Amino acid sequence: MKNYKKTHSCGALGMKDEGRRVTLMGWVHRIRDLGGVIFVDLRDREGITQVVFNPEKDGELSRRAKGLGGEDVIAVVGSVQPRPGGMANPQMATGEIEVIADDLYVISKAKTPPFVIEDGVKATEELRLKYRYLDLRRPEMQRIFRLRHRLYQSTRRFFDEKGFLEIETPFLMKSTPEGARDYLVPSRVHRGRFYALPQSPQLYKQLLMVAGFEKYFQIVKCFRDEDLRADRQPEFTQLDVEMSFVDEEDIFDLIERYIERVFREVLNIEIERPFRRLPYRESLLTYGTDKPDLRFGMEIRALTDLDCWKSFEIFRRIVAGGGEVCGLRVDGGAGASRKQVERWEEIVKEGGIGGLIPVRITREGVTSPIKKHIGDGGITKIIERFQGKIGDLILVLAGEGEGLFSAAGGLRLRLAQHLNLIDPTKFILAWIIDYPLLTYDNGAKKFVPVHHPFTAPVEEDIHKLGTSPGEVRARAYDLVLNGQEIAGGSIRLHDRKIQEKIFRVLGIPQGEAKSKFGFLLDALQYGAPPHGGIAFGFDRLAMIMAGKTSIREVIAFPKTTAALSLMDEAPDRVSPAQLKDLGLTIKKKNIT
Amino acid sequence: MKNYKKTHSCGALGMKDEGRRVTLMGWVHRIRDLGGVIFVDLRDREGITQVVFNPEKDGELSRRAKGLGGEDVIAVVGSVQPRPGGMANPQMATGEIEVIADDLYVISKAKTPPFVIEDGVKATEELRLKYRYLDLRRPEMQRIFRLRHRLYQSTRRFFDEKGFLEIETPFLMKSTPEGARDYLVPSRVHRGRFYALPQSPQLYKQLLMVAGFEKYFQIVKCFRDEDLRADRQPEFTQLDVEMSFVDEEDIFDLIERYIERVFREVLNIEIERPFRRLPYRESLLTYGTDKPDLRFGMEIRALTDLDCWKSFEIFRRIVAGGGEVCGLRVDGGAGASRKQVERWEEIVKEGGIGGLIPVRITREGVTSPIKKHIGDGGITKIIERFQGKIGDLILVLAGEGEGLFSAAGGLRLRLAQHLNLIDPTKFILAWIIDYPLLTYDNGAKKFVPVHHPFTAPVEEDIHKLGTSPGEVRARAYDLVLNGQEIAGGSIRLHDRKIQEKIFRVLGIPQGEAKSKFGFLLDALQYGAPPHGGIAFGFDRLAMIMAGKTSIREVIAFPKTTAALSLMDEAPDRVSPAQLKDLGLTIKKKNIT
Repeated sequence: MKNYKKTHSCGALGMKDEGRRVTLMGWVHRIRDLGGVIFVDLRDREGITQVVFNPEKDGELSRRAKGLGGEDVIAVVGSVQPRPGGMANPQMATGEIEVIADDLYVISKAKTPPFVIEDGVKATEELRLKYRYLDLRRPEMQRIFRLRHRLYQSTRRFFDEKGFLEIETPFLMKSTPEGARDYLVPSRVHRGRFYALPQSPQLYKQLLMVAGFEKYFQIVKCFRDEDLRADRQPEFTQLDVEMSFVDEEDIFDLIERYIERVFREVLNIEIERPFRRLPYRESLLTYGTDKPDLRFGMEIRALTDLDCWKSFEIFRRIVAGGGEVCGLRVDGGAGASRKQVERWEEIVKEGGIGGLIPVRITREGVTSPIKKHIGDGGITKIIERFQGKIGDLILVLAGEGEGLFSAAGGLRLRLAQHLNLIDPTKFILAWIIDYPLLTYDNGAKKFVPVHHPFTAPVEEDIHKLGTSPGEVRARAYDLVLNGQEIAGGSIRLHDRKIQEKIFRVLGIPQGEAKSKFGFLLDALQYGAPPHGGIAFGFDRLAMIMAGKTSIREVIAFPKTTAALSLMDEAPDRVSPAQLKDLGLTIKKKNIT
Repeated sequence: MKNYKKTHSCGALGMKDEGRRVTLMGWVHRIRDLGGVIFVDLRDREGITQVVFNPEKDGELSRRAKGLGGEDVIAVVGSVQPRPGGMANPQMATGEIEVIADDLYVISKAKTPPFVIEDGVKATEELRLKYRYLDLRRPEMQRIFRLRHRLYQSTRRFFDEKGFLEIETPFLMKSTPEGARDYLVPSRVHRGRFYALPQSPQLYKQLLMVAGFEKYFQIVKCFRDEDLRADRQPEFTQLDVEMSFVDEEDIFDLIERYIERVFREVLNIEIERPFRRLPYRESLLTYGTDKPDLRFGMEIRALTDLDCWKSFEIFRRIVAGGGEVCGLRVDGGAGASRKQVERWEEIVKEGGIGGLIPVRITREGVTSPIKKHIGDGGITKIIERFQGKIGDLILVLAGEGEGLFSAAGGLRLRLAQHLNLIDPTKFILAWIIDYPLLTYDNGAKKFVPVHHPFTAPVEEDIHKLGTSPGEVRARAYDLVLNGQEIAGGSIRLHDRKIQEKIFRVLGIPQGEAKSKFGFLLDALQYGAPPHGGIAFGFDRLAMIMAGKTSIREVIAFPKTTAALSLMDEAPDRVSPAQLKDLGLTIKKKNIT
């Protein structure tokens, strides 16, 4: 190695370099023997250059080149030449030239990889995760991590310009589980006691506001010990932002500018501002979810108020029992086969809804199995509600309130996918606002926070805390992008008395509130400014920007949904000495 | 709050704003009543503005202002006026103006803080840590965290410009303790198994090189469960850098440019390049440490070879027994009192050295208690060795090799502090090179790595691995700034065979090497490029740049040397349910 020094990347050379002597270093991407002439596609992170070993020039060198294998790491010295007439490859950045080699040094021989390193790789995800360092060599993965790198830099430049200070908060903190489970870290020095890894820096960023920093941000790892769903990770990255002396409008304005900036700088895409604001209830009723995909319409419309249901016994009973009726209009869908409609019906049945009733508007008239129950008058009312036109299909369903709209929302998404209504190059953002502060947990038989217990209530609603807590609105907001929640935040409580009141409503006894959050309650007494903020799921933002559907694709070394690292086999057993140091024993049945 | 909107910071206003109507928000820093006129110094993170409440203008308003207390958070509306003739305060950025208030809104009343919030605070560190959010309000703390913010941004801009990719590595990894203890994280899903928090992303950054990213950096938290010394923290921040296809020179050049950049951008200080390179042995012999403070001279010189010791029995014995003699020259120190020399002697005695012998060069001749033993000839030899001149003091000491030089190095530092030889505005950097790869651990009776087991040996020395491992030099380097190690790194092993050999020399059985580091050994088989890197103790760099002497001063929420967080009282007890979830029990004697 000593006598070789990389002079150029494998993506850098072109006709401008004709005749230049270069040293390239990289991986053997492909090797071909064309009548004794050896062609090596040499790859590094910047691209691929074709290297030629000609036996007429140097027989010994060509023989050595012939012995190369895929993924060997080599250094090549040679001169840049235009490819011979007609051999240029316009698909390749360096396709006009090749390097005629006169020296070769094999830095590192490679065993045959367990899968072919190329985009569209066919290996299972398990195998790719076990050999993640090979999977990451794929050009697509290199593209993703370059994008993520640019996203970090663009993000920090933006918040720096806006006067935000980057401040690191602790990873070893007190366990204050609210919502998800904490990951615990046993203390050796204080045996029998534990730190917890942060689920978010929420408390610390509020303390930074009490400390007078006014504008804080951080891109930081957070941890939740959950039973993992497909798109969650035990450790994930958060962009965390907090500001003092602000209200919702300041945060909306800041974050809309942030999103505009990163989409412009990272993807060269212009995002429309201001973002739509959608009240929580309206979002549920119109899209069946508080994470609506707004890249297409097909809004759900309520039909409960139509009086035609009186003559349709099944629906009459549902409505009489407090249930609701709603529907969707599928533009140009009148020709959908009965079988197709049955498959769609399966989707809502999975959501616990009894069935799906089609209303087809055709040139020949309207057909529907409920026509005989509700008559032409009823049908007309439905069509009017949807402004249906010839060729459209209206799908009607009924059931219990939220479950009904949620099922309709699920159907809406599946229909859009099936009918190709979603433009993957579009990025549509919206704020979901007017969340309730609290929701009644029927299992726990108490109110729990919709966001977290530090969220401020709308001032006019504070008086309802004692009497009808479920009706108190929160000063909270979520940011939704293409059907996914990418950020959530709120204006926080900065008044100790109201914070204590909230703890009472949540059924957290004063002693517990004090032992868990005493330092925050203390801090609120010493001059707390009004403040609020937001936190982004940074992995998810990166995922959507990279056009991927799993956050595992945008994390260098992700874990499986079973929280395993297949590469290093973590979590693993540890030595008895390590456990002894911590004063812990593993319950017998768990010793493996 | 709703009707108030902060228009300016408390550091922004000046004569240019005369007559402007403004709304300020901040903390009551100081309040004075001068004959009924209330003067409030209002503070936010940008500065302080004097606000005046005049009872002649609005009696009710002034009465309310009079009721304000220190650290209350308020909003003030008023107009900017020049201070009356002669009242301008040139010490204050906003000292030419004041705001004549016509409205006041008390956002948040503050209890009297447990200590006065001002620089030069007299409260104990314990109290300041318990109320860290108040301590952080001090202008000096605000300055430190602004500096640290700029250091983050400048660092990332530099590495981004140089083509490095920021990539996050996992926090929940496999426990592979080498050197310090890992912090463990019990797995709930896989009971009886544990993750470990990273002591550094060493293995992952090497895998990123195998993955072909070529240039990686990250500012990242790391964790070591050590018995803490004064200037260590259980969690600390590292600037982590790794590159492929490079040697030491590439890394030195990169890092010197990095240091030049951040000192210029953050402190507006020009750093001299290139940095001095000091071989490890030379550093030990000349400064008694591998972390020399090079802001002053006073090099240690060996005197062992002088033959005058034959006639000084104590030293003769030491030298005969393999010990050494060395000394320091204190410029102009000849007049130091006997008492003073005795105090210096105490310092070396603490280091296990028998005594300290002064040689005073005065206009009247040379005096020294050893003159009678070694004669004028011996004294002349010593003076020649030090190029001593009239007025100098030479201090001579003898003892066992490393202990002797280490004691002399300690003495050198204390002398420099005592004699005020250290210019606190100077920043002198040096590379310490030519470290040994391994050192023999007399306790464990085996060789252990001086850095870590992934460090490459100097190529010419590889053949000595089997025969004399202690003589093998490492391709490792440390970066020293003003007597502190701020970074360390090495060229890594990229050859699996040599890596396995090193594990054997370290006495790590093959099975253990495979179970601990198998994934790295595997990775090295699939085409590993030559690579190397460096890691900075980012807290320490920030500390030195901020002119502080403890890293706790540059960490927002630090822990004590007992690894406690005095603010939130972590680590703390956790609920039996949490432990049950993890399948763990605390050994009885540790239950508190």
